[in-house]
Amino acid sequence: MKLEINGLVEEIYAEMVEWRRDFHKHPESGWLEFRTSSLVAEKLEAWGYEVMIGKQVIDSNARMGVPPEEILRQHEQRALNQGANIKWLEFVKGGHTGVVGILDTKRPGPTIGLRFDMDALDLVEANNPEHVPAAMGFRSVNEGMMHACGHDAHTSIGLGLAKLFSQIQDQLSGKIKLIFQPAEEGVRGAKSMVAAGVLDDVDVFLANHIGTGVPLGEYVCANNGYLSTTKIDVTFTGVASHAGKCPEEGRNALLAAASAVLNLHGISRHGDGNSRINVGVLNAGTGRNIIPSSAKLKIETRGDTPEVNEYILANAINILKGTAMAHQVEVNIDIVGEAKSVDCSQELAEFVQESIQTIEEISQVHLHSNESSGSEDATYMMEKVKSNGGLATYGVVGTTLAAGHHNEKFDIDELGMKIGVKALAQVVLNSTKLNVKKALV
Amino acid sequence: MKLEINGLVEEIYAEMVEWRRDFHKHPESGWLEFRTSSLVAEKLEAWGYEVMIGKQVIDSNARMGVPPEEILRQHEQRALNQGANIKWLEFVKGGHTGVVGILDTKRPGPTIGLRFDMDALDLVEANNPEHVPAAMGFRSVNEGMMHACGHDAHTSIGLGLAKLFSQIQDQLSGKIKLIFQPAEEGVRGAKSMVAAGVLDDVDVFLANHIGTGVPLGEYVCANNGYLSTTKIDVTFTGVASHAGKCPEEGRNALLAAASAVLNLHGISRHGDGNSRINVGVLNAGTGRNIIPSSAKLKIETRGDTPEVNEYILANAINILKGTAMAHQVEVNIDIVGEAKSVDCSQELAEFVQESIQTIEEISQVHLHSNESSGSEDATYMMEKVKSNGGLATYGVVGTTLAAGHHNEKFDIDELGMKIGVKALAQVVLNSTKLNVKKALV
Amino acid sequence: MKLEINGLVEEIYAEMVEWRRDFHKHPESGWLEFRTSSLVAEKLEAWGYEVMIGKQVIDSNARMGVPPEEILRQHEQRALNQGANIKWLEFVKGGHTGVVGILDTKRPGPTIGLRFDMDALDLVEANNPEHVPAAMGFRSVNEGMMHACGHDAHTSIGLGLAKLFSQIQDQLSGKIKLIFQPAEEGVRGAKSMVAAGVLDDVDVFLANHIGTGVPLGEYVCANNGYLSTTKIDVTFTGVASHAGKCPEEGRNALLAAASAVLNLHGISRHGDGNSRINVGVLNAGTGRNIIPSSAKLKIETRGDTPEVNEYILANAINILKGTAMAHQVEVNIDIVGEAKSVDCSQELAEFVQESIQTIEEISQVHLHSNESSGSEDATYMMEKVKSNGGLATYGVVGTTLAAGHHNEKFDIDELGMKIGVKALAQVVLNSTKLNVKKALV
Amino acid sequence: MKLEINGLVEEIYAEMVEWRRDFHKHPESGWLEFRTSSLVAEKLEAWGYEVMIGKQVIDSNARMGVPPEEILRQHEQRALNQGANIKWLEFVKGGHTGVVGILDTKRPGPTIGLRFDMDALDLVEANNPEHVPAAMGFRSVNEGMMHACGHDAHTSIGLGLAKLFSQIQDQLSGKIKLIFQPAEEGVRGAKSMVAAGVLDDVDVFLANHIGTGVPLGEYVCANNGYLSTTKIDVTFTGVASHAGKCPEEGRNALLAAASAVLNLHGISRHGDGNSRINVGVLNAGTGRNIIPSSAKLKIETRGDTPEVNEYILANAINILKGTAMAHQVEVNIDIVGEAKSVDCSQELAEFVQESIQTIEEISQVHLHSNESSGSEDATYMMEKVKSNGGLATYGVVGTTLAAGHHNEKFDIDELGMKIGVKALAQVVLNSTKLNVKKALV
Repeated sequence: MKLEINGLVEEIYAEMVEWRRDFHKHPESGWLEFRTSSLVAEKLEAWGYEVMIGKQVIDSNARMGVPPEEILRQHEQRALNQGANIKWLEFVKGGHTGVVGILDTKRPGPTIGLRFDMDALDLVEANNPEHVPAAMGFRSVNEGMMHACGHDAHTSIGLGLAKLFSQIQDQLSGKIKLIFQPAEEGVRGAKSMVAAGVLDDVDVFLANHIGTGVPLGEYVCANNGYLSTTKIDVTFTGVASHAGKCPEEGRNALLAAASAVLNLHGISRHGDGNSRINVGVLNAGTGRNIIPSSAKLKIETRGDTPEVNEYILANAINILKGTAMAHQVEVNIDIVGEAKSVDCSQELAEFVQESIQTIEEISQVHLHSNESSGSEDATYMMEKVKSNGGLATYGVVGTTLAAGHHNEKFDIDELGMKIGVKALAQVVLNSTKLNVKKALV
Repeated sequence: MKLEINGLVEEIYAEMVEWRRDFHKHPESGWLEFRTSSLVAEKLEAWGYEVMIGKQVIDSNARMGVPPEEILRQHEQRALNQGANIKWLEFVKGGHTGVVGILDTKRPGPTIGLRFDMDALDLVEANNPEHVPAAMGFRSVNEGMMHACGHDAHTSIGLGLAKLFSQIQDQLSGKIKLIFQPAEEGVRGAKSMVAAGVLDDVDVFLANHIGTGVPLGEYVCANNGYLSTTKIDVTFTGVASHAGKCPEEGRNALLAAASAVLNLHGISRHGDGNSRINVGVLNAGTGRNIIPSSAKLKIETRGDTPEVNEYILANAINILKGTAMAHQVEVNIDIVGEAKSVDCSQELAEFVQESIQTIEEISQVHLHSNESSGSEDATYMMEKVKSNGGLATYGVVGTTLAAGHHNEKFDIDELGMKIGVKALAQVVLNSTKLNVKKALV
Repeated sequence: MKLEINGLVEEIYAEMVEWRRDFHKHPESGWLEFRTSSLVAEKLEAWGYEVMIGKQVIDSNARMGVPPEEILRQHEQRALNQGANIKWLEFVKGGHTGVVGILDTKRPGPTIGLRFDMDALDLVEANNPEHVPAAMGFRSVNEGMMHACGHDAHTSIGLGLAKLFSQIQDQLSGKIKLIFQPAEEGVRGAKSMVAAGVLDDVDVFLANHIGTGVPLGEYVCANNGYLSTTKIDVTFTGVASHAGKCPEEGRNALLAAASAVLNLHGISRHGDGNSRINVGVLNAGTGRNIIPSSAKLKIETRGDTPEVNEYILANAINILKGTAMAHQVEVNIDIVGEAKSVDCSQELAEFVQESIQTIEEISQVHLHSNESSGSEDATYMMEKVKSNGGLATYGVVGTTLAAGHHNEKFDIDELGMKIGVKALAQVVLNSTKLNVKKALV
Repeated sequence: MKLEINGLVEEIYAEMVEWRRDFHKHPESGWLEFRTSSLVAEKLEAWGYEVMIGKQVIDSNARMGVPPEEILRQHEQRALNQGANIKWLEFVKGGHTGVVGILDTKRPGPTIGLRFDMDALDLVEANNPEHVPAAMGFRSVNEGMMHACGHDAHTSIGLGLAKLFSQIQDQLSGKIKLIFQPAEEGVRGAKSMVAAGVLDDVDVFLANHIGTGVPLGEYVCANNGYLSTTKIDVTFTGVASHAGKCPEEGRNALLAAASAVLNLHGISRHGDGNSRINVGVLNAGTGRNIIPSSAKLKIETRGDTPEVNEYILANAINILKGTAMAHQVEVNIDIVGEAKSVDCSQELAEFVQESIQTIEEISQVHLHSNESSGSEDATYMMEKVKSNGGLATYGVVGTTLAAGHHNEKFDIDELGMKIGVKALAQVVLNSTKLNVKKALV
């Protein structure tokens, strides 16, 4: 069976590279993955998958950090111009850019969910000849957007698996859900798919990331280092006034913001674990001689546990509201992203470890990694699956990187994608051996 | 007529010196003038005045900055021990230490109100031989209280006038109200006498201060330099917690206070005039390793006009409340003193100027002084009289000072008291010539 | 004589309107007045004036707020494209856009300096049909720059006077210096002309502003309401770091800026007069999860007197430097503008009042106005002249405005320009009657 | 051998109870242990120990938080009045209240150091009949000082061991140093004994605490939970001024302090471990209408490691100095206490565990405890010994408490003292078996 896969994967890999480069050339940032998601749906349908899409898999109200209507419209149009599938585009319009492909074998076995994130970053891609995408002609044509975190590869891995599973479905059991998620950057999208019920029937869940410092040929079965986090955008709105003639008529949004910043950074540490707060951006005021009437802040909180993060967040909100009251300005607090910290299921991690040890491209398997590596909203999905009695883990498939994630020169060794497909396929193939209590119920 | 007064005043002056030294020896700070007020009432009654006292002339609820019950009790007892009049003491108990003596001539003429403040300061008096009260045996026996602002002289001038008017009442017209006010320091007392209606029928109002930088032999008819002011005591109350083990359980009153202080000092200037804010005292916390659960602040606001002061005060209250909310602590804001800025009536100032120019001890009369000289709550009374259509002014009777006001070595040349009596008596004697519209109504 | 002028002025006025509309159509903001200044020089030379220009009248090092080299280059090129005089352009390159035209009659009499500012504002001009410049085809062709403060009219008045004086030079005495100043907006240019010695020999100085709330037909001889002011640009530079992984490696420029803002607004009031401080703009940080490494602030200080302004400025600099030290970040403080408060010479104001009362278009002459009207750097020139024993005043020539100064719909009734020329010409014609002590020396 | 000890300890225990109650009745806080230390020295000498005392064991300059001279004098006198040993008192005067008793067996073996702290807390002891010391007549006679942390018991344990070792010295090897330390509260004293060289020759070091939540009958061999900490007293000194008349002449120490407090609490978290900062006390200003000229703060920093604590401290000092500069006030920073975090030597902990398991009063032995329990300056001694290649551990001997440490009702079950003596004696008796590399060198 393994040999058979190897041959199929080799064939599919050539296509995956094409797909990945196409996605790389047409990057779309969070909630704007109109072209990407419509093309994913097109392929899934072609390979015989049941396709769920748009509002079927995205709860509109649970989305965070959705761009304004005007931006959505522009990018829908651009997607169309760049070859989006017109039929599926209708479904994902308005920022509902999620797709799920379902393959139900009708044979007994667990329901396995695999998550692939599709969004790009707001970044201008490097254009020097040493940058492979530039040299080989697949540099971003969407200036100011770039796949600098590898989600183009994630999407390709998802499609590679989709094609593979469609070819070997006779050998599969249970049900497979391939979950293509929008807006992972800024941890904005996963919650809305959970809220739409996508994870409700999933017994075994796996998400993967490529790269993140793990060398090509190595694989981490369970990456536990994600912190709970909340991202908030804050606007203080006051009243402008001439600073020389009648300063008393102003309500100073910049001054309120400055006071809030100091007090936010002063939120007390928590005895139960590490916490963080950062005001990363502050823009306020229009002119030197005007009492500033507007101040905008970008803030994030983190915690070792959801409780610690929640503590920091609750204090931050009190400070923002109290400071607004103190300065008699309005404050608008918008939660634009949120992720959890979750422990990977030990049992599943060990199962993955065992399943993939025969893959020849993988020279070293790490059961765990606890290194802090920012935040990830697949944790929402993991938490959901675990709370239903299922198993969940977050793996890392190593590859060589040209530069760090979120860097304008980021690029991957595409071989990592092949390893990713093999590893996940192997887990799925073995999954009937996995003893999932919930699945038995 | 003038000659006659001069002779009488000379006689009375000897007594005034005795009274002043007795008051100086037994200073009583604001709302604790139990001995002083009871003795004033005793004398007024003896000289034939109708005496109104205690709650008749003090509206309990309009008092500000009244000491705690226990302190009131202690000082009532001390007053008794130091020779207070037991009959009148009953009336002024509980911090109702105001007295008004009324002389109604039944002849047509304006109702003239004269204000004399009686309270001392919380200050330890100097005890070196160069300090006259120490050398001559009338240094304060109430350690920690001292007449360092001349209110002992003010009270004596009031009593001197009372005795004089009782002797020359045949030559007087209209009605005279001698108003002995408690708690001028901290601008706490005048409001309560206004609220009790003491000023309701007053057509012409004069208050005087001795000293304040004006040399002996000079007199200022209208001192306009008082700023509007409000004094507030603030307490933030949080929750203590061990700063090492569980800082997150604390609610930090000191941190809230620090933030409030910065924001208070940052209240914007006002385009319509000078303003001030000062946090003069801050005490917070009990131990180095405890999240502080309490912080106490003493604050004052000022403004060129009541509107400017009100603007600063309103902003301060917003900041205090908003900051409490930001830090999830309680805040208690207590207004413990308040005074107005008022323009002296030009017509009355000129009338005083004319009336006193024949007094030989006065070598120089200044119509106006606009120099800022802190705050004064007789302004409450002035505002009341003026709003009723009457006339009001605030004069300064010059004298030589041993040291500045509020200094532990403060002392006056008592001759200033004699001049004060002559000046005010002359205004009263001339008052029938004063054309007060309201009086005619 | 007056009649003669009237006729000449009428003729010149038609040209002035043309000039003004040409300047309005080609606005150039501070230090970029390449086209304007070269055309002014061209005309002055044509009319027989001695022309001093560029570094002769601008001290490079005393300039404030000069744009970067690249911007200078771009605008020099644009000026050339838009018809600048190529000969004179050479002199004003690099941001030395000042011109002085000198008419020396060789006859005894004072040296009179008249100041005209030439710069536009960075503002997009209104484009609706109700906006006269748009309707009549002289709306700004330099998008993002606009004459919205009337300096186009000031320059035209200066040229109108130049032409007039060249025609009537037989009737003039003394020496006339027509000073065309760059970069008045932001109070950046006057200091550099004073430093270059332009005012050293001036006995009588007059500057004028058009509009500012004074109706058409009225004239203010002495506008005293300008506050001392300093404009500063501040950059805090820290070290970026990932806010989740290693916040301790960052040096937080945004946090430093926030603390500075609070402390700046908390600078104490001054007992000698009104003061102001405003942080009008703050921009800091690049990403939500990055410790911000840069923060830029635009600040201004003001004071009733230079001393009060200097007090606020000195405190602000201490706060900026101390806060940088507290947060271990670098701070760069750049003074980009400065102006003084100056009392107009009473004698000269009265002389102007008398001189212009026969001008029929002026229905009402105001000797003084003390209304605060922001800041103006002609005050530097006034101070220089006065400190040399000369006389100086700042007048306002009323006109009807379509909208307030600095508004995108600002426009003037051009008749005000004619009145301005008549008024200033009359003062110059009368100036031999003016008794200037310094001139006699 | 064990049996013999048991009998001796039973005898000594009766005395230990007496000593402990005597110390409890005469508590002396840090650097004031004049009576305590002189009586300890008296006993050590009587039992044949070489006594090192005063400046022999305390480096004057390395002391932290020493009370003022006047206080030292008063308490020296009181100690004398309360029965201090007059001979030894001479040595400990001036706050040099440390004693070391040395027993050199002249037989081969390690040098073992045992640390006992002697100081009391500044606390008023409870006086209700339920409080055993009150009921039994050994409540503190030094009002405002109280042994509420068990150091009276620690001193008694030290003396108990001293007496025991003197009785069984034939069975001992190596050298024993009984180190009686002053001023552990506030972590002020240990550093000065290290600096005096007391620990230089110590191969094996043990310190013990009684109580701290461990039940009677249990023993913790290695308590690792101490945080690094630094205690600092800070004074800002500005210039007072009348807040109404000339606020610009003041330099506001309270405002500087408030700004410092906010910025101190805003010091960034450290990626390598937990940190803390607390401003526990702030007192500033004298009067409502005076710009405050003085502000005093009590601050502490903590860190999981010395590096993290050092990071917080370094930032705090930058903030304090920078803020002083910003507000043009003086700042005085006084380090009044300091302790380290130290890992107990695993080898020694296991040796203790093994040594004490036969003690019948000990029902449960815990090898480690990592629970955070504040700070302890024996860590200075431990670090010194370990850096010399020796072994060190910090044990906890359980006992029943009437109330928590530092509580006014604190009291111990004295049986804990007996267990403490047995445990430490057993370790010393076994110590020849301990393989200390350094000792062999």
